[in-house]
Amino acid sequence: MPLWVVYHPPGTFDDDETKQALAKDITDWYSTGRGTLPRFYVVVNFIQLPVNSVWVGGELRKDKPFIRLTVDHIAVRMPDDDAQYKRIMQGISAFLKPHIADKGYDWEVHVDETERRLWQINGINPPPWRSEEEKMWHKENRPVPYETKL
Amino acid sequence: MPLWVVYHPPGTFDDDETKQALAKDITDWYSTGRGTLPRFYVVVNFIQLPVNSVWVGGELRKDKPFIRLTVDHIAVRMPDDDAQYKRIMQGISAFLKPHIADKGYDWEVHVDETERRLWQINGINPPPWRSEEEKMWHKENRPVPYETKL
Amino acid sequence: MPLWVVYHPPGTFDDDETKQALAKDITDWYSTGRGTLPRFYVVVNFIQLPVNSVWVGGELRKDKPFIRLTVDHIAVRMPDDDAQYKRIMQGISAFLKPHIADKGYDWEVHVDETERRLWQINGINPPPWRSEEEKMWHKENRPVPYETKL
Repeated sequence: MPLWVVYHPPGTFDDDETKQALAKDITDWYSTGRGTLPRFYVVVNFIQLPVNSVWVGGELRKDKPFIRLTVDHIAVRMPDDDAQYKRIMQGISAFLKPHIADKGYDWEVHVDETERRLWQINGINPPPWRSEEEKMWHKENRPVPYETKL
Repeated sequence: MPLWVVYHPPGTFDDDETKQALAKDITDWYSTGRGTLPRFYVVVNFIQLPVNSVWVGGELRKDKPFIRLTVDHIAVRMPDDDAQYKRIMQGISAFLKPHIADKGYDWEVHVDETERRLWQINGINPPPWRSEEEKMWHKENRPVPYETKL
Repeated sequence: MPLWVVYHPPGTFDDDETKQALAKDITDWYSTGRGTLPRFYVVVNFIQLPVNSVWVGGELRKDKPFIRLTVDHIAVRMPDDDAQYKRIMQGISAFLKPHIADKGYDWEVHVDETERRLWQINGINPPPWRSEEEKMWHKENRPVPYETKL
């Protein structure tokens, strides 16, 4: 479910270690502690774009890397509540910090929320949030076929 | 309208035949039988990403290809109905099967629905779903200017 | 906020001048005249795809370039009003014309609207639309920390 796309210029996220460090922190946030989602729900696509393919305000960012992250949330739709939205974005900002802000990059992120019922993994509609079946998926870390009630 | 983006690793969808076979089955599903949409509405972008650019649950998928498909539905917004959502996803799963599941790939797909009125092809707002004008677009398989009533 | 992704084949938007000309016109539309958004809100990503990676209606477009543009609107959600939607799309169509239609390319564009509260730039929730703080961001053309009221 969360699908993260990280648009980044050459010189950033160049090696596997840097990529994995970010991907791991994203994954941990969704799947440990308060987050209860199976780890394999979290997909992070790094898309490297040439410096002259990204224009911010009509200009290139040649002196400072600019990282544009887009996020699709599918498994859980947030309640329409200012405080919760704020908490989510603060959480994201906090775990991104060592990978982006602390390196002196500029960045922008936004989250879209899409319909959970229009989502499949290996042809299976993932089980309801916080269901027993989801706990099993979390534990096994793979999509296990289960009985649907529909 | 439907915009399909297929993120895939090298070694999958490498040649035109494999790509076209999938693109054709996607297109057929929307434009023949129950689907009445003009064929040219269906756009499929294949985006090949290096194996080390896609992290699932914080890990690379080195042993088994992982295909991540994202879909934007624009022309038709589904009614909020469990059975219809289920039918859509079963339909998608069925036509993807020979191209992905049967090849032993893992995969995930999700659909977003966006506002039809914020959509243009060659500067024209596509005609209403199942209108006479849409039938003409289907038949001609191109965006033909028409009188708007707005 | 608006994030534009321009999927284009080789032979189109090949040099910086062509890219900047489009990016500048997109940016101007959002940030001058009626548009009041800070210029740096506008991000345009050019993603060049090989000709055989884009299938329209199950076919390649070998004779005529096809440009597929996707747009995410984050800062401002439009009222549910036919006339306003129409005006937006006419505006987009008009400023794209010299860059796409007049060059003989085919094209398709659609806009998604996402939740403003799930958006950050450099870790800051951008100030409310048309607020004094937003005017400051527009003037300074960068995200300036400010006091939030929440």
